[in-house]
Amino acid sequence: MTQITVAELAKLVGGRVVGDASRSIVGLGDLRSAGPDRIGFVREARYQAVAKTTRAGAILTVTQLATSAAQVLVDDVDVAYAKVSAHFHPVPRATAHDVHATAVVHPEAQLEAPVAIGPRAVVGKARIGAGTVISPGVVVGDGCVIGRDCFLHPNVTLYTGVQLGNRVILHASAVLGSDGFGYAREGSQWIKVPQLGNTVLEDDVEVGALTAIDRGALGTTRIGARTKIDNQCHIAHNCTIGCDVAMAAGVQIAGSTTVGDRCVFAGKVGISGHLQVASDVRIGGGSMVFKDVPESGDYMGHPLLEKRRSLRLLRVLRGLVPSREDGE
Amino acid sequence: MTQITVAELAKLVGGRVVGDASRSIVGLGDLRSAGPDRIGFVREARYQAVAKTTRAGAILTVTQLATSAAQVLVDDVDVAYAKVSAHFHPVPRATAHDVHATAVVHPEAQLEAPVAIGPRAVVGKARIGAGTVISPGVVVGDGCVIGRDCFLHPNVTLYTGVQLGNRVILHASAVLGSDGFGYAREGSQWIKVPQLGNTVLEDDVEVGALTAIDRGALGTTRIGARTKIDNQCHIAHNCTIGCDVAMAAGVQIAGSTTVGDRCVFAGKVGISGHLQVASDVRIGGGSMVFKDVPESGDYMGHPLLEKRRSLRLLRVLRGLVPSREDGE
Amino acid sequence: MTQITVAELAKLVGGRVVGDASRSIVGLGDLRSAGPDRIGFVREARYQAVAKTTRAGAILTVTQLATSAAQVLVDDVDVAYAKVSAHFHPVPRATAHDVHATAVVHPEAQLEAPVAIGPRAVVGKARIGAGTVISPGVVVGDGCVIGRDCFLHPNVTLYTGVQLGNRVILHASAVLGSDGFGYAREGSQWIKVPQLGNTVLEDDVEVGALTAIDRGALGTTRIGARTKIDNQCHIAHNCTIGCDVAMAAGVQIAGSTTVGDRCVFAGKVGISGHLQVASDVRIGGGSMVFKDVPESGDYMGHPLLEKRRSLRLLRVLRGLVPSREDGE
Repeated sequence: MTQITVAELAKLVGGRVVGDASRSIVGLGDLRSAGPDRIGFVREARYQAVAKTTRAGAILTVTQLATSAAQVLVDDVDVAYAKVSAHFHPVPRATAHDVHATAVVHPEAQLEAPVAIGPRAVVGKARIGAGTVISPGVVVGDGCVIGRDCFLHPNVTLYTGVQLGNRVILHASAVLGSDGFGYAREGSQWIKVPQLGNTVLEDDVEVGALTAIDRGALGTTRIGARTKIDNQCHIAHNCTIGCDVAMAAGVQIAGSTTVGDRCVFAGKVGISGHLQVASDVRIGGGSMVFKDVPESGDYMGHPLLEKRRSLRLLRVLRGLVPSREDGE
Repeated sequence: MTQITVAELAKLVGGRVVGDASRSIVGLGDLRSAGPDRIGFVREARYQAVAKTTRAGAILTVTQLATSAAQVLVDDVDVAYAKVSAHFHPVPRATAHDVHATAVVHPEAQLEAPVAIGPRAVVGKARIGAGTVISPGVVVGDGCVIGRDCFLHPNVTLYTGVQLGNRVILHASAVLGSDGFGYAREGSQWIKVPQLGNTVLEDDVEVGALTAIDRGALGTTRIGARTKIDNQCHIAHNCTIGCDVAMAAGVQIAGSTTVGDRCVFAGKVGISGHLQVASDVRIGGGSMVFKDVPESGDYMGHPLLEKRRSLRLLRVLRGLVPSREDGE
Repeated sequence: MTQITVAELAKLVGGRVVGDASRSIVGLGDLRSAGPDRIGFVREARYQAVAKTTRAGAILTVTQLATSAAQVLVDDVDVAYAKVSAHFHPVPRATAHDVHATAVVHPEAQLEAPVAIGPRAVVGKARIGAGTVISPGVVVGDGCVIGRDCFLHPNVTLYTGVQLGNRVILHASAVLGSDGFGYAREGSQWIKVPQLGNTVLEDDVEVGALTAIDRGALGTTRIGARTKIDNQCHIAHNCTIGCDVAMAAGVQIAGSTTVGDRCVFAGKVGISGHLQVASDVRIGGGSMVFKDVPESGDYMGHPLLEKRRSLRLLRVLRGLVPSREDGE
């Protein structure tokens, strides 16, 4: 069990210690049950009582508490908690070079040791950086370039030529580089347009389970650095998604749309193709976006409106059908 | 072919026999074509004419018919049909212990014989109960506990520590125990919050193809006994879903929401996080739920309204744009 | 590199050559950078300037240009481009019979050589036509019948008895033949109705990544010839989808619904069960369909209205909440 002192934890989270900074901590704990080698946290005032009686060794907190535990005073408990938790529970990386006997790896694949390739994984003529973990059932196509310290969960599929930066996480059964939905219509028939582009995920992108990111028709479908995409999202061909974006489950974006940086899309948002969404745009759950969103801000609904207008519209709509005595 | 008498079938479905209860039946059939060793059913009056002329050996029916076939009188033909069909077509279970030579099973995995593990399955240090079938390409993480008589279809992924009760059915490429979408925001960046909880499915749960059920951030994401979830649904971290719930395809529920028992959600319903939905709540297709639903009943739409109000609203909205002579 | 003359390309696309028809072309290129062995295209007038100075050997164009390149005059550049691109980048097919040593193929499977079966694929007692490629991780159930020149991408699952025509393309982790969501309700409990039907895809169907097409409860779930389905769609049990239909990502159709020919559904459309949708119906993104659509035409919204009425409704709704000075 990795030990760390309260002083070191405070440094890790940019916090200030009140009390015994020399205590050594081995993990997180619940203040109600944790022992002296654990660190807990107080997020809200109503938990301050617990702090009085806790046996925990340390507490992450915004405001100083009456407690015998060492306190690490921070600006944001959530951020501090995330960092402390990540210290004790880091994303696993390959530390020893280990290709399972049942994995099928192309003889010309370039593995920068140490790489861990699990049972039944299939790796084509690809390049994989040091520290990366390829889980069971993953399929990596020819020409893929995977950075360092990436983690690919089971049954992920990478088509040919997908490029991943460093520390990219792909959850189970995510599909990257699949053909875009591209056809030309001749009379009543659809003629498939070969999808010849690629898919690029920059550093520190995380992609949820069962999410699909298509390859470009000719160019690139790109996901910017540190962007986080939840489960069952769809990013169509030739989209360009900015950096530090967050998309909740079920967001689906049609082809050739550009999304700026730091956007936040709630669940089930749909965005049409060939649109421009500015940076710092936040869109509420279930919204449908059919026009450019040129200005940052909060939006929701269908029609998509500024959030306050959209909430007013919902009130107006309710008012159109007042409930009656009949139980409605 | 398993044989069963009409009398035994009547007992199976809690029905009453009219006619020859001793006939032996080997399977279901269509009244128009079935022979004397088959049982058919009459669900609606307009099929009663067929009963007159059928050669089938028996008929499931609510009301007595003019027919030479033995009749099994039941309260609900659909329920009786389901039970008879399940008798002739049970969910397969492992009867002989059989681990395929190409499966990769952790030496410390505990398999309660008989267990069937298919080609290319990968089983970590997990426990699997008797009768359970693990199909090709399934990946079972370390620490998983799988009950008896479960059926995991191909390419399912179980992350570490997932717990399944007995008789759980998971369809192809379902993903259980994936990381929740949990981040703390520091400035413009998202700091990943390690997802340390687990996922629990109680007895007799069925999960559709390509459905994702995330693990808890700290606690548990729980699906209650006998709940049925269709394809491409998403249950986020720390949700608690009650018993006997049915969710159609595309339902997506955000984190920490609690759903009561016996709820029925139609396709594409979206529910925000940290909400409470009471028991016996039925929600129409495509509805978006942004507030608690404290009372049982029928709801639909966006804004979510009692079903009758929501239908009135749809009529009012149509009235706002009367169609014109121009062909609209 | 396959060589083809401009004359042959013109024949391929049904075009007329202006200039040197004898030039040999080896691939597509961008008019700004391509050399004399490449063919480019001019889709819009604003690109005609580029044609003047290009070094490309040939150009696909609707109207004759001032250029030294050979011109192939066509009615529709998009269709011509698709055909030329497909000539240089055809969907791969098996040319040599090759079953990878790590694939698991049922001894009674019938493979019509040449068939290519990739690493870790599992093929039951099925029939597979000549030219078909089975990628790594694909699972083909017993009783499946797969036509000629099909391409199954990685980790696809075919349940038992799925039938594919010729030239069918299935993208990664698509699931065909999964159980329909069929239960009978007895008191508060759901009794599973065994799903005994099958799934049939006719010739030239393409199915996107992570799409699910359930098997029929008793009969067949059928996808008509040349229909194209994007990622993450769901076709429930006993649906009948016509020919030459196109469905964008996230379309989900409930059970027993019939869709005519040449329909076009944009992303996230939801359609209830037991409905009839006529041929040549086009439905806008995010629409919810709760009633039959008996007449061809353009529709959108919820309530679903003729497109022009639906657009008027969106304007009316915006008008209900005029923006204020407060920044909304």
